[in-house]
Amino acid sequence: MVNLTPNPSFSVSIRIKLPNRAGMLATVFQAIGDAGGSLGHIELLDRTHTTQIRELMVDASSTEHAEKIVCAVKALEDVQFLEVSDRTFDLHRGGKIEIASKQPLHSQDDLAMAYTPGVGRVCMAIAEDPDQVYGLTIKSKTVAVVTDGSAVLGLGNIGPEAALPVMEGKAMLFQEFGQLNAFPVCLATQDVDEIVAAVKQIAPVFGGVNLEDISAPRCFEVEERLRRELTIPVFHDDQHGTAIVVLAALINALKLVHKPITQVKVVINGAGAAGIAIAQLLQKAGASNICLCDRKGIVSRDRTDLNSRKQTLACEASGTLADAMQDADIFLGVSAPGVVTPEMVQTMAKDPIVFAMANPIPEIQPELIQGDVAVVATGRSDYPNQINNVLAFPGVFRGALNCRAEAITTTMHLQAAFAIATLVGSDQLCREHIIPSVFDPRVATAVASAVEQAARQEGISHC
Amino acid sequence: MVNLTPNPSFSVSIRIKLPNRAGMLATVFQAIGDAGGSLGHIELLDRTHTTQIRELMVDASSTEHAEKIVCAVKALEDVQFLEVSDRTFDLHRGGKIEIASKQPLHSQDDLAMAYTPGVGRVCMAIAEDPDQVYGLTIKSKTVAVVTDGSAVLGLGNIGPEAALPVMEGKAMLFQEFGQLNAFPVCLATQDVDEIVAAVKQIAPVFGGVNLEDISAPRCFEVEERLRRELTIPVFHDDQHGTAIVVLAALINALKLVHKPITQVKVVINGAGAAGIAIAQLLQKAGASNICLCDRKGIVSRDRTDLNSRKQTLACEASGTLADAMQDADIFLGVSAPGVVTPEMVQTMAKDPIVFAMANPIPEIQPELIQGDVAVVATGRSDYPNQINNVLAFPGVFRGALNCRAEAITTTMHLQAAFAIATLVGSDQLCREHIIPSVFDPRVATAVASAVEQAARQEGISHC
Repeated sequence: MVNLTPNPSFSVSIRIKLPNRAGMLATVFQAIGDAGGSLGHIELLDRTHTTQIRELMVDASSTEHAEKIVCAVKALEDVQFLEVSDRTFDLHRGGKIEIASKQPLHSQDDLAMAYTPGVGRVCMAIAEDPDQVYGLTIKSKTVAVVTDGSAVLGLGNIGPEAALPVMEGKAMLFQEFGQLNAFPVCLATQDVDEIVAAVKQIAPVFGGVNLEDISAPRCFEVEERLRRELTIPVFHDDQHGTAIVVLAALINALKLVHKPITQVKVVINGAGAAGIAIAQLLQKAGASNICLCDRKGIVSRDRTDLNSRKQTLACEASGTLADAMQDADIFLGVSAPGVVTPEMVQTMAKDPIVFAMANPIPEIQPELIQGDVAVVATGRSDYPNQINNVLAFPGVFRGALNCRAEAITTTMHLQAAFAIATLVGSDQLCREHIIPSVFDPRVATAVASAVEQAARQEGISHC
Repeated sequence: MVNLTPNPSFSVSIRIKLPNRAGMLATVFQAIGDAGGSLGHIELLDRTHTTQIRELMVDASSTEHAEKIVCAVKALEDVQFLEVSDRTFDLHRGGKIEIASKQPLHSQDDLAMAYTPGVGRVCMAIAEDPDQVYGLTIKSKTVAVVTDGSAVLGLGNIGPEAALPVMEGKAMLFQEFGQLNAFPVCLATQDVDEIVAAVKQIAPVFGGVNLEDISAPRCFEVEERLRRELTIPVFHDDQHGTAIVVLAALINALKLVHKPITQVKVVINGAGAAGIAIAQLLQKAGASNICLCDRKGIVSRDRTDLNSRKQTLACEASGTLADAMQDADIFLGVSAPGVVTPEMVQTMAKDPIVFAMANPIPEIQPELIQGDVAVVATGRSDYPNQINNVLAFPGVFRGALNCRAEAITTTMHLQAAFAIATLVGSDQLCREHIIPSVFDPRVATAVASAVEQAARQEGISHC
């Protein structure tokens, strides 16, 4: 097990009362430091001439580590321990989103216009011209974030209730980065027919459907069927969001090593939703030498255990992941912690590119291969080059909804990737900066605009 | 057709440019007044020494009337007509609700706690103890507003898209009056099995289900089955919300005429969702002499065309609505405009009570029977005694969600009605004030508290 560095997801808030005298606080900080905790914000809540009450935010590397830090503080003489709380849990309590009114409701006039009797006229306008639902309701700005809880983050099949914190988080990201309403739809079924039926029933309210954390290979069928049976765009973010951002980063990484995408050998480890979609989008972008691997090694034509998606992508070669990586120009990991060794990387071609995107612990820790590779990227925010879906999905949906695209096509994925890649100018492009920051305010607009333009060119926009 | 008075649901905003000289504005106002328009806010947008630009809010009584007013203004000499817009449509454009983030997402730390990797710990806490979904997500404060669009307001079967403006409005009311999140679920099916299946699939996110504008008798079966098959409370507002507010108003009206509810003869006209629920709640409150009527007259045991709900409430008598109303103490209308005449009211018992709640046009206009009745109430805000569901549902759900009630029972309905009635003190109670205003800030809290207490006494609360 790789030891994580202290990080905000294991952050605690520690409240203590201590004598108001020189050096006291330093003693506390020293104890926290000795225990391996990383100090963040420090607040002074109260102070008299003899005492002070402080609240300390401390990052730990695990729950156990946080407890160890708390014990170290508790053990200090003269320090009265008041309270500890888990900052992540505090933030989630009561939910992270809310449904707010855009209009005041303070008078009978407000009610008469927003609700009865005035609303009746608006309803009739839509009944007479169904297209008006886009202009007169939330539909054109609202996305369903749909999951069945079967493949939540790296946590597996934890069910719809336990998936809800992720879907709320996704809704926050849609609002913050895409100015779109997104609502969590956590389904109490993992049956493909029932998922498809439920999403179709609730579709009238939504302008688009974002599928999330549905396990492969069911996710492929769910997406395909919904795309066929709905007239609003459907997008499985774990597949296409990931593929778009990987391609964007790869386009820039390849610029650094001066290799054309058509010539490189790419190894993709992980043949779930993300791996398959990455392979397909890279093919669309011109890559022809792609070797997909799963838990059993190379997805080879010789194997008899492949689902239809894997069959389509199967290659001539066979062997282990290590075999596949020999002479590869690019390794893309969407698999599991620690499955790649420095030795495996050393067998790759000259100037290799390694995207180790398993979350939260990469296929290989970047510091282990720093000297051996041209570019390394991960899914983490505490290393350079974070491959993060939030670079794609808010803009993708905004673009698609802006022009009422009836689908989100591979061409739109491709254009989204180009738009993201282009935001890293040639003056900024370097091995530690191949992809824009998720906080770069240009990203969503650039993606939306590229996606919208692609939809119009494909003739699938409706306004 | 009853002629409506000008009201804000037919309000237009008229923008004009006119000479900045004494008397000009008066001329415009005179023209609007002559055309029957009612002036609201008047804004000065711009003024030079020779011209002024004004925006006038004008209530009309219909779309045609608004056009007539606009024509009258356009006909004025020296007045340049700039623009007219429909204020109700303006207010609905782009939707009336939004999904907002309760937490900032401005740094990597924010992301790491609200989303990955921190959110994984919160998910696992729920996976290990499913009850935690109530504390760590929006569930405990979130209500699904579910419709199939089959009986929207008085507009009939206009479908799920055309129903959405009403459901958004309902969500606004839930937030404004109950501080609850409510999300519109407009289903693309009117099949009972499919409605039940869809609501069950999406239930994990919600703390309660508010059924809305589903036509009778399907609404009874949908509610019954969902109550049986879900562990969260289900409440059909058109039935029980209406019944609660009617009973609350009736309790106070009966105080004024000194008649006990056990002794009165009640005629209910309209045997749909609302009429049936009102009859059942009045029975629970002690009324025994109830005569239900539908389009064909008295719901009599002799009839062979009754659904099972009507059968349960059928009475010995038979005849027309006019027959039913003879000697009745109370008329409750949840039916259609203008179906009651002054002559019918004159045949009622001494000190009759008339609730003419058809929307937007009552069964009889209150001014026609002012001298003949002890108390009159309507569903409208421009007459005294508005019977409005918003007095009930926000508090009902808040109470039920506060204590995680597994259902909303008839006892809870009854207690909600008592709580609303009690808010009109004996010093305020009079024939023009039998029910609190929807803007009385005490209402939702009082209802919530009564409902919660009832749930605890019934032993169906879970926290």
